[in-house]
Amino acid sequence: MMDIIALRRDLHAHPELGFTEFRTATKVVQILTELGYSVTYGKDAIDDTSRRGLPKPEVLEDAYQRALREGADPVIMEQMRGGFTAVVAEIQGEQEGPTTAFRFDMDALPIRESKLEQHAPQATQFRSRHEGIMHACAHDGHTTIGLALAERLSNRKFAGRIRLLFQPAEEGVRGAYAMVEKGMLEQVDRLFCMHLGTGVPSGHIRGASAGFLATTKLEAHFTGVSSHAGATPEEGRNALLGAATAMLNIHALPRFSSADTRINVGILEGGTGANIIAEHARMVIETRSTSEETNRELERRVRNIIEHSAAMHELTASVEVVGSAIPIRCDMELAELAVQQAEGIAGFTHAEAISDSAALGSEDASYMIRRVQEQGGKATYMIVGSELPAPHHHPEFDIDEAVLAPAVELLEKLARTLQTTDL
Amino acid sequence: MMDIIALRRDLHAHPELGFTEFRTATKVVQILTELGYSVTYGKDAIDDTSRRGLPKPEVLEDAYQRALREGADPVIMEQMRGGFTAVVAEIQGEQEGPTTAFRFDMDALPIRESKLEQHAPQATQFRSRHEGIMHACAHDGHTTIGLALAERLSNRKFAGRIRLLFQPAEEGVRGAYAMVEKGMLEQVDRLFCMHLGTGVPSGHIRGASAGFLATTKLEAHFTGVSSHAGATPEEGRNALLGAATAMLNIHALPRFSSADTRINVGILEGGTGANIIAEHARMVIETRSTSEETNRELERRVRNIIEHSAAMHELTASVEVVGSAIPIRCDMELAELAVQQAEGIAGFTHAEAISDSAALGSEDASYMIRRVQEQGGKATYMIVGSELPAPHHHPEFDIDEAVLAPAVELLEKLARTLQTTDL
Amino acid sequence: MMDIIALRRDLHAHPELGFTEFRTATKVVQILTELGYSVTYGKDAIDDTSRRGLPKPEVLEDAYQRALREGADPVIMEQMRGGFTAVVAEIQGEQEGPTTAFRFDMDALPIRESKLEQHAPQATQFRSRHEGIMHACAHDGHTTIGLALAERLSNRKFAGRIRLLFQPAEEGVRGAYAMVEKGMLEQVDRLFCMHLGTGVPSGHIRGASAGFLATTKLEAHFTGVSSHAGATPEEGRNALLGAATAMLNIHALPRFSSADTRINVGILEGGTGANIIAEHARMVIETRSTSEETNRELERRVRNIIEHSAAMHELTASVEVVGSAIPIRCDMELAELAVQQAEGIAGFTHAEAISDSAALGSEDASYMIRRVQEQGGKATYMIVGSELPAPHHHPEFDIDEAVLAPAVELLEKLARTLQTTDL
Amino acid sequence: MMDIIALRRDLHAHPELGFTEFRTATKVVQILTELGYSVTYGKDAIDDTSRRGLPKPEVLEDAYQRALREGADPVIMEQMRGGFTAVVAEIQGEQEGPTTAFRFDMDALPIRESKLEQHAPQATQFRSRHEGIMHACAHDGHTTIGLALAERLSNRKFAGRIRLLFQPAEEGVRGAYAMVEKGMLEQVDRLFCMHLGTGVPSGHIRGASAGFLATTKLEAHFTGVSSHAGATPEEGRNALLGAATAMLNIHALPRFSSADTRINVGILEGGTGANIIAEHARMVIETRSTSEETNRELERRVRNIIEHSAAMHELTASVEVVGSAIPIRCDMELAELAVQQAEGIAGFTHAEAISDSAALGSEDASYMIRRVQEQGGKATYMIVGSELPAPHHHPEFDIDEAVLAPAVELLEKLARTLQTTDL
Repeated sequence: MMDIIALRRDLHAHPELGFTEFRTATKVVQILTELGYSVTYGKDAIDDTSRRGLPKPEVLEDAYQRALREGADPVIMEQMRGGFTAVVAEIQGEQEGPTTAFRFDMDALPIRESKLEQHAPQATQFRSRHEGIMHACAHDGHTTIGLALAERLSNRKFAGRIRLLFQPAEEGVRGAYAMVEKGMLEQVDRLFCMHLGTGVPSGHIRGASAGFLATTKLEAHFTGVSSHAGATPEEGRNALLGAATAMLNIHALPRFSSADTRINVGILEGGTGANIIAEHARMVIETRSTSEETNRELERRVRNIIEHSAAMHELTASVEVVGSAIPIRCDMELAELAVQQAEGIAGFTHAEAISDSAALGSEDASYMIRRVQEQGGKATYMIVGSELPAPHHHPEFDIDEAVLAPAVELLEKLARTLQTTDL
Repeated sequence: MMDIIALRRDLHAHPELGFTEFRTATKVVQILTELGYSVTYGKDAIDDTSRRGLPKPEVLEDAYQRALREGADPVIMEQMRGGFTAVVAEIQGEQEGPTTAFRFDMDALPIRESKLEQHAPQATQFRSRHEGIMHACAHDGHTTIGLALAERLSNRKFAGRIRLLFQPAEEGVRGAYAMVEKGMLEQVDRLFCMHLGTGVPSGHIRGASAGFLATTKLEAHFTGVSSHAGATPEEGRNALLGAATAMLNIHALPRFSSADTRINVGILEGGTGANIIAEHARMVIETRSTSEETNRELERRVRNIIEHSAAMHELTASVEVVGSAIPIRCDMELAELAVQQAEGIAGFTHAEAISDSAALGSEDASYMIRRVQEQGGKATYMIVGSELPAPHHHPEFDIDEAVLAPAVELLEKLARTLQTTDL
Repeated sequence: MMDIIALRRDLHAHPELGFTEFRTATKVVQILTELGYSVTYGKDAIDDTSRRGLPKPEVLEDAYQRALREGADPVIMEQMRGGFTAVVAEIQGEQEGPTTAFRFDMDALPIRESKLEQHAPQATQFRSRHEGIMHACAHDGHTTIGLALAERLSNRKFAGRIRLLFQPAEEGVRGAYAMVEKGMLEQVDRLFCMHLGTGVPSGHIRGASAGFLATTKLEAHFTGVSSHAGATPEEGRNALLGAATAMLNIHALPRFSSADTRINVGILEGGTGANIIAEHARMVIETRSTSEETNRELERRVRNIIEHSAAMHELTASVEVVGSAIPIRCDMELAELAVQQAEGIAGFTHAEAISDSAALGSEDASYMIRRVQEQGGKATYMIVGSELPAPHHHPEFDIDEAVLAPAVELLEKLARTLQTTDL
Repeated sequence: MMDIIALRRDLHAHPELGFTEFRTATKVVQILTELGYSVTYGKDAIDDTSRRGLPKPEVLEDAYQRALREGADPVIMEQMRGGFTAVVAEIQGEQEGPTTAFRFDMDALPIRESKLEQHAPQATQFRSRHEGIMHACAHDGHTTIGLALAERLSNRKFAGRIRLLFQPAEEGVRGAYAMVEKGMLEQVDRLFCMHLGTGVPSGHIRGASAGFLATTKLEAHFTGVSSHAGATPEEGRNALLGAATAMLNIHALPRFSSADTRINVGILEGGTGANIIAEHARMVIETRSTSEETNRELERRVRNIIEHSAAMHELTASVEVVGSAIPIRCDMELAELAVQQAEGIAGFTHAEAISDSAALGSEDASYMIRRVQEQGGKATYMIVGSELPAPHHHPEFDIDEAVLAPAVELLEKLARTLQTTDL
């Protein structure tokens, strides 16, 4: 049996940012292959041009070299070069039956992990060895659960097929869409997505989640003409004036009566020196809405503001989608099945199908869920509770490792039950 | 002989705004005709579509009816209906010779005249009878001087031709260009423009002026879609957001190293109620520069900002030129001749050709001056000093009536001398 | 019996804006006095300094003189001079019992009424005789219903006391608060507020309304220093730059996760001419929220933005509350009683206690409702349906006069029933 | 004799940014000490708290360690630790006489030097060994000239005293003021400042320069409160909204009729991610004017805008002066003396006292010049021409090494002559 605590700690100590999960994904490929799964990865598992917010080539390459230095299998990894770090594994059960899929995300965050002694990874010496990168959103736990589940199901004692999706770049909602576009959700009848923590205590499970917002993340570039601010100011075309105008006007977009909305310019940067009229500015924006249509309308308006803020100052502007997600509507049959199956698992003390208290976040698993539902299948997004010493995305974030084993057991029960359940 | 004090006071008591000088211009036509001048007026003296900042039809008509009620000659005035209030008069001297022109402006300002007893027009009972309109820039004096000069020259004791130009709508630099476009400056060899006051004391004359800036006055309208701000904010297209964005960005246009510049959004107004998203906003802008070319570039940039501030909020925008002027370069030969001729006129104690202290104002006589110079002629813009109890455009502004007679005498001497002078 | 159609048409033909309801309120006082009610009005019925958005003294006086010319009783009206146009009437029933109050609003809107022949008031010749003012929100109907109700109850055939509140200045949510502050809601056990129309068809009644937002209307003034934009721009302090900055930043205030919000700068105006740096600008703003607390926070942030937008340009700013309302929570017992009593009234075909479809408007009756509830009483805001040829606040707005009689009957039944009902 | 070409190339190959000229200044101290000068440096030569735009401690320390690794004398350098890299040397002539000073700046720029073969330092292998730092403004030449001059004058064949000022951090106008504040200009009777290039061809010298503007460089920080943009936007205090508002309003500051002005926000940057409300923003601004007083007024207004742009969004703001200069008025007696002394020096073909074509730049030698003039002394800012393959601050900038020797000879002649000249 796999040592899931050791596995989780190894992943925690080697966190990798979105689309650079070379070491992690290679390990996933190796384990799944050894377990007898049919494994698809690299360009076969994710669509090249649908990937959003891809890091620059030199960043991809630096991470690749680091993984090589850390001993990742170069033959497997070669297929992932350039940021193709998705892995999909499938296994056929003893009998015919439906296809059930589980999705696990693998990427970490650009956060410097705490060195405080009360922080368990520091105390127990599995703190991040990649300075400035950290598993602060439990994806190390998710990947571990996925691999442990794979081991349990490798005996093929079930009907139908099991598909395990290991997704890169969930942070920034960048990777799922490209796996969907590559066809990785075709023929899936049931899909379980899952997250640890999110405010739910250890021992609790929630079968479905509400409150996921449609979102689009945009990166805009304004390009003007630099000039000496003292000698020839009139020859400049000031990119920062365009960006500042866009900043204010994007935030001034109206509320919508049709749906809840959110808007944020999270990054604005440009210019090189006090005496130079800024030639270039960069802006990162996100829109959100409870309605996918309203979110698209917000995106349209943001693009229009950027275009004309630039043109007003005779700048050129470009806008690129660097991430996106849609709302999630869970199928309550799956949620209730999860509640039912949690019964009797040691470590679970409370189970509920759904909660009123919706967190207003976004998840690109939403694309996978919708694709399954479009095909006539069912899907849900579950929460497995975990005490957290600090919130998600915090330098002292950590998970309660005791919840990993029950989570694996629950998924296993769902996998086996579902294959014979007519929903 | 004409009673110039009485004439000036009659004009002062009946001030008329630009393009509505129906009573004033009709009186000018009557007097000049009686004096034997060949008089051109109405649509024959000013180009229809080149007039800038024309008042709305109902405003023109209200002023027309007021002039009728005040006894203006309806036959003459009919030719001026709709704002064609320019008058040009010409007379041929006894011998052949060159053509000398003089320009006088006739319009008043939208200012409520003072009722204080220390204000001479109030004390002597020739305060404005048109409430809210006032001759606060001495154009009543200019018109008076023009008519008195006409009387002096009606004996034809000179060589060549004299042309007298009575211009509407100098305030806002709106009327001169349309007279030039109608050909009223053709064949002029020498042109004198003149202003009373402007900081020069009584008894002083200045033969030429410096410091006139090129300028453009623009009126912009932003049109969006109104909507109830509580119920359906997303259905509005907010004209005030567009206008406020234009306001800030127009003022943020760069300084120019090539020339001095000025920029001002002087009026911004829009919206109808707290709970309505504003459908419409109006903006009045002026650009200025020591360089005509730089002023044109500023105008281009202002238009671009307006266009894109509107488009950013899905508004339509229109921009109209409502006034304009260009820099003035006086011919110093004329300035020096004026200094020379002032010698010996009772009432003039000091004469100078030009001064270093330039006021940074604008004048649309500049178009007349340039046209004459383009034809090979010479032109200047003179100042006849006058003590002023309050600055130009002030409710207590008044001129020193004692300077009118010497001014007429100076112009008469210049008219007679010039016709035999080879400059 | 009162001719309610004639009364409504008389009121419609003589519309009066908020706090200038001199003719209307005087008529109300006369009728109620004749019916034997104890009538309170003028400064006794409304708190002076709590009135919001009071018109300027000259506007109040002009309206007062118009009412005098139209024959309003000068003795009664003298008590209302200066905008004290509230009327409260009370009558004691034959037995002891609780106090039930009804509120009716009296003011009209600054809208020019349609002259189209299909517009009934035009066709039937009771179109507004006060050009530019119009009863376009049914308050003429409300006042009529109130007076007809007063007549029905004047026989005192009920237990307890009936109080009738005739409110000025509901438009702009300006008058109710000052009546509450004067104590006009003290000892009220049950309160009915009522509106005609609002999208509900003729024959329908709704016992309670949802969706009323807290709101604050603010008027801000920015005062700087004017200067000639060409000669001495640096001496100006530009009020329009301050106002435009406030405009953009107020609209850029964040969405709140705690409640729905709305924000609008509905009017912005300033400046006098192209060549003058604007000395003054005026801005009218409204905030709204489903939460009173969030609305207060929005108001605080708006004030802060105005203060610093002004200070940034060395302007002074003042901000005044010109209207406000709070959310309404109806007591469903009253709503259900209304549904019950509507049964059997000719003219009512459908009654419902409340509807899901909430209009996002605001009402200052909210202050009256809350005061009654704070005292342990119960209150509701009812809708009596009416077909409308055009929406509220439209030049062709009109009510279905056939709904007036059933409305009076319903209120009468509620008045009599309530006095003996233990809710 | 010193090999000035070798010296210049050594300096060129080891460029150091402002206040980190540890290797350069240490070498200057060593050479001057060996030549017999009395040398002052470290905290004795520059005032601690008057230094502007000091790099962060870790940047200072990294540069310090690099100089150590490159063999700089650790004993001398210890006195300069923390950015005290000014050096002042003095020598007494054979007779008594006045004190003449020369100023040389030593710092380089954050520019990546060209690797093109046509770029002489690349071809001849003295390209920068400090990647990303480059002598692209000829300060390597200036320091070389200063040291060669020191050698020539070390024979003391002159009357009076010679003082040589080696200044750090001229780029960004940061270092001179602090040397003045430390008293390094006390008792100076004549001061020569000098620059190579600036558009003047090889062989030409110009005795005085016009067109230097007063300037202030400011760095502002806006600090708010970060928050999740989707979950709790109302809890954020958005630093980027404050900075964008400041950006637009600073650029919208008025033109001044009293003086030419310039204004630029050259850098604006803030925020960490699309979904986080930005907690922090940084802005770098410069003001300039032909008038020192107007520049101070501009600085005052910029600070006011920053303060209130921050307060408007409930941010805190800090503003620090990171550089400054004042206008320069050269003493023409010195300029003419330079023209005179250039006569007969091989390599100089043309000399002029001053030119009309003023570059609108800024120089903090201005503080030294004014201090000397305030003490009754005379000062000038000379240009020694040099062909340039690319403009100043360009990656391919280089000087014509042939001009170094004539420049040294001219300064030597001026030094010897001045000591016996009564200006």
